[in-house]
Amino acid sequence: MADQLHLRQVGIDTYHENVAYMHRECETYRAEGFQALSKIEIGSDGGRILAVLNVVDDANIVNPGELGLSQQAFAQLGVAEGSLVSVAHAEPPASMEAVRRKIDGERLDQHDFDQIARDIADNRYSKMEMAAFLVASGNSLDRDEILYLTRAMINTGERLDWQEPLVADKHCIGGIPGNRTSMLVVPIVAAHGMLIPKTSSRAITSPAGTADTMEVLAKVNLDPGELLGIVRHQRGCLAWGGTARLAPVDDILISVERPLGIDSPGQMIASILAKKLAAGSTHLLIDIPVGPTAKVRHMRQALALRKLFEFVGDHLDIHLEVVITDGRQPIGRGIGPVLEARDVMQVLSNDPEAPADLRQKALQLAGRVIEFDPDVRGGQGYAIARDILDSGRAIAKMNDIIDAQGRNEAVLEPGPLSFEVAADHDGVVTAIDNYHLARLARIAGAPMDKRAGVDLLKKLGDPVQRGEPLYRVHAEFQQDFDFAHNLCRKASGYRIGQPEQIPQPFVAF
Amino acid sequence: MADQLHLRQVGIDTYHENVAYMHRECETYRAEGFQALSKIEIGSDGGRILAVLNVVDDANIVNPGELGLSQQAFAQLGVAEGSLVSVAHAEPPASMEAVRRKIDGERLDQHDFDQIARDIADNRYSKMEMAAFLVASGNSLDRDEILYLTRAMINTGERLDWQEPLVADKHCIGGIPGNRTSMLVVPIVAAHGMLIPKTSSRAITSPAGTADTMEVLAKVNLDPGELLGIVRHQRGCLAWGGTARLAPVDDILISVERPLGIDSPGQMIASILAKKLAAGSTHLLIDIPVGPTAKVRHMRQALALRKLFEFVGDHLDIHLEVVITDGRQPIGRGIGPVLEARDVMQVLSNDPEAPADLRQKALQLAGRVIEFDPDVRGGQGYAIARDILDSGRAIAKMNDIIDAQGRNEAVLEPGPLSFEVAADHDGVVTAIDNYHLARLARIAGAPMDKRAGVDLLKKLGDPVQRGEPLYRVHAEFQQDFDFAHNLCRKASGYRIGQPEQIPQPFVAF
Repeated sequence: MADQLHLRQVGIDTYHENVAYMHRECETYRAEGFQALSKIEIGSDGGRILAVLNVVDDANIVNPGELGLSQQAFAQLGVAEGSLVSVAHAEPPASMEAVRRKIDGERLDQHDFDQIARDIADNRYSKMEMAAFLVASGNSLDRDEILYLTRAMINTGERLDWQEPLVADKHCIGGIPGNRTSMLVVPIVAAHGMLIPKTSSRAITSPAGTADTMEVLAKVNLDPGELLGIVRHQRGCLAWGGTARLAPVDDILISVERPLGIDSPGQMIASILAKKLAAGSTHLLIDIPVGPTAKVRHMRQALALRKLFEFVGDHLDIHLEVVITDGRQPIGRGIGPVLEARDVMQVLSNDPEAPADLRQKALQLAGRVIEFDPDVRGGQGYAIARDILDSGRAIAKMNDIIDAQGRNEAVLEPGPLSFEVAADHDGVVTAIDNYHLARLARIAGAPMDKRAGVDLLKKLGDPVQRGEPLYRVHAEFQQDFDFAHNLCRKASGYRIGQPEQIPQPFVAF
Repeated sequence: MADQLHLRQVGIDTYHENVAYMHRECETYRAEGFQALSKIEIGSDGGRILAVLNVVDDANIVNPGELGLSQQAFAQLGVAEGSLVSVAHAEPPASMEAVRRKIDGERLDQHDFDQIARDIADNRYSKMEMAAFLVASGNSLDRDEILYLTRAMINTGERLDWQEPLVADKHCIGGIPGNRTSMLVVPIVAAHGMLIPKTSSRAITSPAGTADTMEVLAKVNLDPGELLGIVRHQRGCLAWGGTARLAPVDDILISVERPLGIDSPGQMIASILAKKLAAGSTHLLIDIPVGPTAKVRHMRQALALRKLFEFVGDHLDIHLEVVITDGRQPIGRGIGPVLEARDVMQVLSNDPEAPADLRQKALQLAGRVIEFDPDVRGGQGYAIARDILDSGRAIAKMNDIIDAQGRNEAVLEPGPLSFEVAADHDGVVTAIDNYHLARLARIAGAPMDKRAGVDLLKKLGDPVQRGEPLYRVHAEFQQDFDFAHNLCRKASGYRIGQPEQIPQPFVAF
């Protein structure tokens, strides 16, 4: 344990990783034999935190008598600038011992997961320690361990209580561009009178999340008080979920999982269910799309995943149902916030131009959610949902929700720069690569440029002639346009062939 | 791909992790939708590098029109301050695809390991990506994969060529405090006329590395040119290995492995052999100590490890032999640089006070190395080594090496603050905990305070009476003294019992 240094806040945002800054000429730095990237413990009257050390050669950032902390670390330590703090080599967080047991192939128990989640929530894990935990537990969590992890994640955050017996939600495991069914299911289900306080994420690796698309129409960044009022009045909402402190460990782990591109079933199930349970859901419908370019590519994987969801859901006392859906191609026509919002509004307003597949899928899902209502007879949900949509009650509800959240008055058109990609021979569309089209929409600028994206003009089974356009790409900026154009020169993402080459859907509803 | 920003060097040392700094008000930051900790790619005329983004709110660090880089990242990009650079979201390094296959349990081939090592050497991996690789490959590398990894690590750095048919080296896998046999083996073997250009590491988690202890006597931080001259003249050296760019991937991986506390056999073998082969060794003796508190605790583990070493060594065309040694307790008396240097010099000068176990082990190892000499008859090495030591030729050679490297004239005494830990009942010493005593020496200040450490007064089998001192702890600073004292109040690290409780050595030489 070393001499005391004066605390200074350094104006650097390092998100979930606490960083400490010491000057190279600092006596303590020299005496303790720290190295850059050493993990150190900083103690004060207020408590102690762990941080990764960066060594500074610029006295404008910290001088030799100071200890600097990045913004979040400073907030976490919670004492004033200039306070005396002590610095020492950090012991690894105690729960790393459990992580090492997991690396060695052992099974962990509830206590182990509780400790790991607690240490992560307290920012005691470095990114590499989290990566070690995620990789070690990636493909080796059994179903009990998934349950323990889910429970541990719920217990380290706040938990909403809506004080109602039935709080519905739906969630898709992702991977299908354009799949904006939540923006249809929520108004339909809320119009039926059920409580469906839907919060969504923004896109991280996809060209649009529900929050990004909803933001084309209304404000989504609502504080918890606003949200509560809207849900009480409207029975539903379509808000961004980032403001509440629900299952914060999940957000932290995701910040490591995404850049690593690891997405194991166990982590996914724990992540989804922890968020939903923390959000107070009592009834949850999970959508698992299956297709050659979907996240889940085989029916047997989908069934295994379904059973895991059911096992964990049952033990955590949430009413959970899983539907396995057709994930062979994007849903609807638009990919990207503005184009997807257009599709959604077309369906809601019963526009004859509305994409039939989006309407159909949304009605199926809404029907299943409506059947959570004990007063609805089994099998009647779909008809109720269709009636709500066709009668105009769904769009009325959507307009109420938009107004309640704060309508975005600007009418947004797709990006002004556009080009079309055409078929290079005659035939029918036999495959559309979800992954390729999502990537193309991102390169064109989505989701940051709300008007960027891809508009599909042909779908699976549609006949096309050589030279006929397959889709149109929209961009806001010339550079994005050029990049997207280059990508399309390499591959269109479409396959044109004979009708018998179209893969069968792995399953219908 | 974004607008251009002016490059600025930020005076922050982030070691092997490239960090980029952008102001929160920077147009590019806002337009691209980066987040703190996003991985970004920075392009310039000179090339492109990857870095982790930190977001800055202080225009003294970077202003909104600038892109800041930490020192190493700035050096790697290699263009002047003020140059225009472009910034974009980074794609993960291409070889992460192989890491994901490894996470999924696949076996990787030579090409995969080559790509991973190349990307790591080019600083394209973040710490969490390295952690993912290390954990995924931790306990699942088969012997072919260990070979591929070793080869890939050798190929990504420089490789020394001594232009001699026999270049000897020895290496201990570690874990035994006080085990400074290299400082005896090198002068003995060099006095025999064999080439033994030994480079060593500094301590990372132990209380002293060979480089730390040698530094008590001589300069160890030699540039490659100096080193070459010394080795040519003296046939041996005892230098710090950190200056050469030998198997740099190994150094980078170690910087992640150590804080995670993961130490898998595959990584260890690849690390040791890559370093030795890059250093130009043709003949290598590996020392695997076995004991209840050693790294290797069972004879069967030691044998499995030996076979892995032999397999990889044979395929990489190095003459490799493994000795399994008694690792039940520390070797010699001193733990910590000054105390260990004293032990070594006592053995070299045939002092009757010299620790017999250190002398004996060093002679055994030196004898085995000498038998690499084709002119030495099998079984004669030990006698030759003993003759070199007893005749004074070893200490003469050591003095020549010390003078050549640059003698440290200051005679260092053990730290002035000291206390003794005494037996609490009569009996014989039946166990000494390697791990506990190493930790104690570190807490007392070793290796940074060269005079800090532990001096063992009793070893296994020694009879003791209640109140008789077992060891003495030396510290340089009062705070370290107090911490060490506190640790000793919890446990001494010694067990006192009956002679029949002393564990048998798992094997003799």
